[in-house]
Amino acid sequence: MTDAHPGEFELIALLTRGLPSHSDVISGVGDDCAILDTGGNRLLLATCDSQVEGVHFTFQTPNPEDIGRKALAINISDIAAMGGEPRYALISLILPLRQSIEIIERVYAGLRQEAEQFAIAIVGGNISGAGKGEQLVIDITLLGSIERGHALMRSGARIGDTLFVTGSLGDAAAGLYTILHPDNAYPSEARDALRSVHRVPRPRVREGRILSQLGSGTVTAMIDISDGLSGDLHHLCERSNVGARIDTVQVPLSQELCTIASVAAHDPLDWALHGGEDYELLFSVSPGKEDFVFEALQSATGTSITPIGKLCPAEEGIKLVWPGGQEEALVPGSWDHLRQ
Amino acid sequence: MTDAHPGEFELIALLTRGLPSHSDVISGVGDDCAILDTGGNRLLLATCDSQVEGVHFTFQTPNPEDIGRKALAINISDIAAMGGEPRYALISLILPLRQSIEIIERVYAGLRQEAEQFAIAIVGGNISGAGKGEQLVIDITLLGSIERGHALMRSGARIGDTLFVTGSLGDAAAGLYTILHPDNAYPSEARDALRSVHRVPRPRVREGRILSQLGSGTVTAMIDISDGLSGDLHHLCERSNVGARIDTVQVPLSQELCTIASVAAHDPLDWALHGGEDYELLFSVSPGKEDFVFEALQSATGTSITPIGKLCPAEEGIKLVWPGGQEEALVPGSWDHLRQ
Repeated sequence: MTDAHPGEFELIALLTRGLPSHSDVISGVGDDCAILDTGGNRLLLATCDSQVEGVHFTFQTPNPEDIGRKALAINISDIAAMGGEPRYALISLILPLRQSIEIIERVYAGLRQEAEQFAIAIVGGNISGAGKGEQLVIDITLLGSIERGHALMRSGARIGDTLFVTGSLGDAAAGLYTILHPDNAYPSEARDALRSVHRVPRPRVREGRILSQLGSGTVTAMIDISDGLSGDLHHLCERSNVGARIDTVQVPLSQELCTIASVAAHDPLDWALHGGEDYELLFSVSPGKEDFVFEALQSATGTSITPIGKLCPAEEGIKLVWPGGQEEALVPGSWDHLRQ
Repeated sequence: MTDAHPGEFELIALLTRGLPSHSDVISGVGDDCAILDTGGNRLLLATCDSQVEGVHFTFQTPNPEDIGRKALAINISDIAAMGGEPRYALISLILPLRQSIEIIERVYAGLRQEAEQFAIAIVGGNISGAGKGEQLVIDITLLGSIERGHALMRSGARIGDTLFVTGSLGDAAAGLYTILHPDNAYPSEARDALRSVHRVPRPRVREGRILSQLGSGTVTAMIDISDGLSGDLHHLCERSNVGARIDTVQVPLSQELCTIASVAAHDPLDWALHGGEDYELLFSVSPGKEDFVFEALQSATGTSITPIGKLCPAEEGIKLVWPGGQEEALVPGSWDHLRQ
């Protein structure tokens, strides 16, 4: 690919520029899901995402079922990021000729397990041959629903809001690192825990549902962290026209991440800031509502949430604040698979 | 691919066997679209279909825009086949590294033109790199809507109903033939007309809408002809548990098809029975309602419709009836791209 080739987000912007608007489209291209008014009590959410063999996964995995689970989970996470309920999935497969049917059945079994866990109905799909192509492609459209007025978009954050994240960051990236750089020195328990986060992310549907029901103006914006904190924070700030200051000591790191980082001599914060595929939720909370949100989420789900920073005017940019008070621009270091 | 490899329809049946049902899913896998009850006055229709470079299209075409138009048109045809209105599209692209952005912009421009023509909002999508892959993949999910109780499914046909088709059959297959077997002897007007049908099918949305509004029990079942008449008639008969007798002299052939068939020394009926990608509608009409349906459709749209046969008990099979009265089993000769 030449240097002139745009990245994924620039290309989407280029192709979809000036798309005509329709009155029943509450929100189209540019958020985790489209929000559509189909006339019922609830609004329809729609998202699609694909997994390509050799780009997003390989069959060098002990369980082909995990490939199917993950392909659906990353879509579920987009519904969770709006605060919605996942409902219906359409599964499109592009099959290489060499692919054994037994493996495809196991991948699909994983899809079905994940669908069942989240009460999603698989309602349609398509199977196409890949001709001379060598890659399995799993492309999924997931539809969900949300009460009118409750969807949490990327665009609602305001200056002075506190930024929170669920869970811990960087685990999926560290898990992938241990797969790409195998080393007998990794403690196996920590290694396996992180690999499992990488292989089968757990979308935060329950947490998203609770956050979307806390009352208007409590949680102001939300996004799931699929491209890494640095990348997705930029998406949220751009859509909300705000800047952000992230307190580096507050970024939640798991014990397992720190263990592996130490053995690998890798900065754990680098994984937490720039590693993709965490599928945790990043959200902003109105000033004064932090304790209420913290209590509500933790008591209902047991999921930890951590305040990692504050939103500021857009012209102040997006910055890391180190313990000594030094500030540094947070440059998105996310993985762009059109640029690799 | 080994002989043991199932075809597309067998594989879908294998993978989706025993999917759990949900009360808001009126119809799931197995028809042109899923029918979903999202609580409004109208039901939601959902379908997805993909186009793979080297399997469904090549860039050996004068207009890359046509590739985008067709990718959306084949999905629109699935909505038309239920009698619905197309509304929202999600466009997923898998991009090879070598692909020029100019070409992708032209493909996408075709998608936008087609969307605009049918008042479809492009509300989401995804772009993924293909890694080492060489094929552009365009995978589209299209959502539509239909009034409650009006969706025309494959499963409603009854013994004694008359089978109709819109337009003429085989044109797309003959157009493809002239591309694969170029010959200066083809009259250019007929050749170009057929190629154009192959490159940019015109989904029968207006016709489907009218057919779905003629009152309960008038049109009893419908399907679009994407896999060829022989293949799609089998789908309709299987889902309705009926057989069929097709009157060979009644199968509508265009003048252009006959012209090219004559030059190519090819049986035009073979293209009409087994050629895919016509995207005409095949539908069944209750006894005594034929004239009413004929008048209603022709007066509103000017589109020709032709009665091509009758439905009979399933145990009598699906047969061609020749002018002399001889009968012959109609074996699906449709193209299955998992078997090629």
